[in-house]
Amino acid sequence: MVVQELLNILGPGKVLTGASVSERYFHIWATQSGLQAAAVILPRSTSEVSHVLSICNKYVQPVIVHGGLTGLVGSTESEKEQIVISLEKMNSIEEIDTQSRTMTVQAGVILENIQEAAKSNGMLFPLNFGAKGSAHIGGAISTNAGGLRVFRYGQTRNLILGLEAVLADGTIISSMKKIIKDNSGYDVKQLFIGSEGTLGIVTKAVLRLQEAPQSRNSVIAALPNYKNVVAFLKFMDAGLAGTLSAFELLWPSYYESMTSDPAPFKPPIPHGYPYYVLLDSLASNRGKDKLRIEALLEHALENNLIIDAALAENESDQQWFWSIREQIEHLQPLLKNFQGFDISVPIPAIGTYINSLIETCDAIPEIEKIISFGHVADGNIHLIFGKSVQSPELVHRINKLVYLPLKELGGSISAEHGIGIDKKDYLYLSRSQNEIDLMKRLKKALDPNNILNPSRIFDM
Amino acid sequence: MVVQELLNILGPGKVLTGASVSERYFHIWATQSGLQAAAVILPRSTSEVSHVLSICNKYVQPVIVHGGLTGLVGSTESEKEQIVISLEKMNSIEEIDTQSRTMTVQAGVILENIQEAAKSNGMLFPLNFGAKGSAHIGGAISTNAGGLRVFRYGQTRNLILGLEAVLADGTIISSMKKIIKDNSGYDVKQLFIGSEGTLGIVTKAVLRLQEAPQSRNSVIAALPNYKNVVAFLKFMDAGLAGTLSAFELLWPSYYESMTSDPAPFKPPIPHGYPYYVLLDSLASNRGKDKLRIEALLEHALENNLIIDAALAENESDQQWFWSIREQIEHLQPLLKNFQGFDISVPIPAIGTYINSLIETCDAIPEIEKIISFGHVADGNIHLIFGKSVQSPELVHRINKLVYLPLKELGGSISAEHGIGIDKKDYLYLSRSQNEIDLMKRLKKALDPNNILNPSRIFDM
Repeated sequence: MVVQELLNILGPGKVLTGASVSERYFHIWATQSGLQAAAVILPRSTSEVSHVLSICNKYVQPVIVHGGLTGLVGSTESEKEQIVISLEKMNSIEEIDTQSRTMTVQAGVILENIQEAAKSNGMLFPLNFGAKGSAHIGGAISTNAGGLRVFRYGQTRNLILGLEAVLADGTIISSMKKIIKDNSGYDVKQLFIGSEGTLGIVTKAVLRLQEAPQSRNSVIAALPNYKNVVAFLKFMDAGLAGTLSAFELLWPSYYESMTSDPAPFKPPIPHGYPYYVLLDSLASNRGKDKLRIEALLEHALENNLIIDAALAENESDQQWFWSIREQIEHLQPLLKNFQGFDISVPIPAIGTYINSLIETCDAIPEIEKIISFGHVADGNIHLIFGKSVQSPELVHRINKLVYLPLKELGGSISAEHGIGIDKKDYLYLSRSQNEIDLMKRLKKALDPNNILNPSRIFDM
Repeated sequence: MVVQELLNILGPGKVLTGASVSERYFHIWATQSGLQAAAVILPRSTSEVSHVLSICNKYVQPVIVHGGLTGLVGSTESEKEQIVISLEKMNSIEEIDTQSRTMTVQAGVILENIQEAAKSNGMLFPLNFGAKGSAHIGGAISTNAGGLRVFRYGQTRNLILGLEAVLADGTIISSMKKIIKDNSGYDVKQLFIGSEGTLGIVTKAVLRLQEAPQSRNSVIAALPNYKNVVAFLKFMDAGLAGTLSAFELLWPSYYESMTSDPAPFKPPIPHGYPYYVLLDSLASNRGKDKLRIEALLEHALENNLIIDAALAENESDQQWFWSIREQIEHLQPLLKNFQGFDISVPIPAIGTYINSLIETCDAIPEIEKIISFGHVADGNIHLIFGKSVQSPELVHRINKLVYLPLKELGGSISAEHGIGIDKKDYLYLSRSQNEIDLMKRLKKALDPNNILNPSRIFDM
């Protein structure tokens, strides 16, 4: 009945049913498996999203929101009686305003297209992560996506000036302003950023742009111990004064895997060091910036803060260095029965946390490999386990080994990816019961029928 | 009855009544006028705040929250049957962690004490505004305070990693984490930032610190027109690549008043130019940074982007330049019947907006002076009117002249100060009815008895 009403209002081009549903998929890594849903709705405008939701709300019809389908916590999976709303047809860049330094976009625009549009206007949209070629900006907003440049520019939350979202009952909340400061009442757009589509569907945004950096310098350095990693971060951050844009830590497990057969990359500095840091400075004058970085590295070497370093000589060196960090698909052959994590730990505690985790896992024969790397300047570490077997018990056992210490440490079970369906069972390790109760109070206030992305983050 | 119950639980030292109430005040500018309240509560801990609120909630007892009493929108005024909770005794800096680059503080710590504590640990807490010597960090969080360095470091919202707040019913929502990235469920702390104490009382925070800048350079420049102001902002921002930390626009009305009798400052560059910009670069090497700035200014002069400029030669010059911007109390003698504004306008529209406002006001004889200045890089302009008479009609007429165009422009009636009581009537010009309804929905969900700072921002 609800599907029929949607068909009557939107027409068949915007309401897919039957085979048109099952030839779609719920994740870009699962393109072979057919989508399950009562219908897939392809709205073209915010008012269509509003119509659709007001009808679904009337019928208490659960809705699952689809963006670029690059999420990593199962949020886009649907059941056969659910309706999928995909924002893929709302893919217009509406305006680039280089004076206000903003871009106005619909939710279905692909991140890479935003980056390119900014670049061709002399600007930078700093949000950057692996899935940029498929991820929609609406999904990035809904999950408060992070990535490689959060240290300097902030997470998605910090890059959004204006936002438009549709509540479960179809109410449009629109505040598409280009201004940086607006303390006129509650900043309600914060509700829709990082709430994984459970409080409203993001339909449009005004993005904050930066002037495009005119130069880039990349360094890979080796360090003798974790204490020095923290000291080197502080030293380079102070010395580079606002231009340090990425500071990634690569454990030897990662660096050596990415720079040995079958991975295609040569190592810029030798294997065998305890820690590797890859950093980027985005600034305005390549030559002068390079001299400054050389002086800083020299000082760091003289003071035994670092034990080796390579500075990219040109753009092709930069690509080489950063491919080692970004092209993680080369790790796949090494990691059978892949199990990945995306955690936060307070920066000074990361070294010990990883060491003790590795020690514990060494005693578990089914764990063949642990690879760790990540955005150490944000306290955000990615971990990948390779295993000899795949079983729910082993998955759960490893989850517990990784997650349990985080409560005590004040860390997070999800730095970037969100909770979705996959991490619900561990949410209590990141959030107190009072916090979770408050989340539910918000959910109930905004979506009393629990139709929007139900059972994501928590169960009502 | 409620006061008696609070006395029984907390003891008389923490519950002031009678003369001890009336010898207090509600604003640092109103120290002569006695405070009206049934009692003033001085909790020493979060759990005491929680006890107090659970009792007040039980009795449906309205509560007004006091911090440093430096707010500018009437939020701290109370009525005689209301209870004031002051956070002044919760004034401990609990920890400074230079490795995590965080400071853990109670809500009643004065901003300047935080700045000093950061500095003496080689760190910077970038939040900075005129009232720093009295303002509490809890108030700054509750109002999402802005100030002089938002352009680079963000508003208060961006400087808070962890937060603890108490809901109206006494529930403690505590997430005192030191991590930058945490996407585990809704970021509930956002609710308490900028909601002016209406959704909860902030009791503690984990602040994000930066490495202390090792050098500062200040420039004052003159520009021929507003178009060039925007172009100069973009040029200097790109050229200074991450180190541009403040970019203030001073109209001649402001600059000439602050650098003429009776104000005590000499003008660094002559009077008579159409626009003045005061900018700051915080970086790591004064000498090299100065050379870079000189080269940029030379280029800007050659290309007629600017028509004059002075670069501070030393710290005393810097103080001189910045006193012109910061010591606005020297304007007081010029501004009878003071009426102030704190608005946002999209950056490219500011020049025309101010010109047209001045033109309109020139035709109103009771308006003697309009002084404009502000954080133009944030789109945030402060306006001060001096008038020959004071009447509610004239106040309202000027409010309308300033506020009415903002809706069409996509601006804000309050960039920094908040809405409080004073700006409630104009909230509809900054926010749609749907947004205001959503704010009320949140208020009702979190404070169903409407006891927390009632009648602030909007009436229920």
